[in-house]
Amino acid sequence: MHRTRVKVAEGALDANDTIARANRHDFDHAGVRVVNLMSAPGSGKTTLLERALPELDVRAGVLEGDVQGSLDSDRLAALHVPVVQLNTGAGFGGECHLDANMVRSALGELELEELDLLVIENVGNLVCPAEFRVGEDARAMVCSITEGEDKPLKYPHAFRAARLMLLTKTDLLPHVPFDAARCLALARRVNPDLELLQVSAASPGGLQPWYAWLRAQRAASLAGA
Amino acid sequence: MHRTRVKVAEGALDANDTIARANRHDFDHAGVRVVNLMSAPGSGKTTLLERALPELDVRAGVLEGDVQGSLDSDRLAALHVPVVQLNTGAGFGGECHLDANMVRSALGELELEELDLLVIENVGNLVCPAEFRVGEDARAMVCSITEGEDKPLKYPHAFRAARLMLLTKTDLLPHVPFDAARCLALARRVNPDLELLQVSAASPGGLQPWYAWLRAQRAASLAGA
Repeated sequence: MHRTRVKVAEGALDANDTIARANRHDFDHAGVRVVNLMSAPGSGKTTLLERALPELDVRAGVLEGDVQGSLDSDRLAALHVPVVQLNTGAGFGGECHLDANMVRSALGELELEELDLLVIENVGNLVCPAEFRVGEDARAMVCSITEGEDKPLKYPHAFRAARLMLLTKTDLLPHVPFDAARCLALARRVNPDLELLQVSAASPGGLQPWYAWLRAQRAASLAGA
Repeated sequence: MHRTRVKVAEGALDANDTIARANRHDFDHAGVRVVNLMSAPGSGKTTLLERALPELDVRAGVLEGDVQGSLDSDRLAALHVPVVQLNTGAGFGGECHLDANMVRSALGELELEELDLLVIENVGNLVCPAEFRVGEDARAMVCSITEGEDKPLKYPHAFRAARLMLLTKTDLLPHVPFDAARCLALARRVNPDLELLQVSAASPGGLQPWYAWLRAQRAASLAGA
């Protein structure tokens, strides 16, 4: 009797990782730096982009993920940057996150060669977006102070997956019981390498640290980092 | 040749609905009213319960859903009410919502016959919790004014699934650009039958409408509604 030897492929990639690698190859080939922006609903991701994109001296594009509608992409398109809306509701069965294949399906709509920076605004959700790499260079997460200090302990995957944590709406600190030092300590406990920035869209100059971080992303790309 | 006739069961329930019906049967049999509380992370669900449970003249219990940890159930257990923590991370593979089977797996830990009201605090997420009935009488959703006015349009399933929308943190209205009338109009556009309450845990008496709603739930249960 002939027995077939089945060779087990060690470290085989799952489908998402395989497609994320293909995306990454395309991003690298085009020389575009890619940031995957994650947060709970209403933390202020779109406002952060609306304010940052005109300030940056880079050719930026946005891939906008939402379950339904085009409210955010309409806001960003008004800035005359290339924006592609990806609805996870209609085409993808109501998914609560973006995955590598959804991102790939949208890449044909973007002229990657014309971009220096691509920001992927994920669906507002602190759980599943962290589980799906999409080929990005870095993941940034946004956390509003109104959400409370305990979020790093309750949603550790997102905080562990991110390189940057943006603590937003700090102008509300006088009106909300929130211990910023404790929140930052909890975030660092979950992810010791996490970069931390405190920002506010309502204070003059309050978003400068965010602009500087995005500029540094682009600079790292040019330096081949 | 003998051919087997395969009868197709029309309108067959999916597994979740089947188990939700079993939960519902147990809730009805025990005479306990069940509210499924849904929201984005950090909208204030646990605070709403912490404040309401001592005010209600009912025997209340809580089933607390979180990806990880027991921060919220620890807060509620201090009130000396029966609380069961359900972690979707360890036992259920990192799910971003509660489903009927998870709830069923926790029911053995609760003396349903000893309760008038059971509140199920879902995982903080505006997408998937709305897709899974767990056998509840009513779903209530919590929306903080800091999340912005557009949430009903971006997460319509949650607003459509809910009977009640609690607009929370209204004490912050002077400090946040938020048009409550517009948000409520958008919510009603998505779900014309939605009950709407505006509440604040930081204002004296600011949670009375919420207490009254929970009392009415219990009264409806006694009336057999």
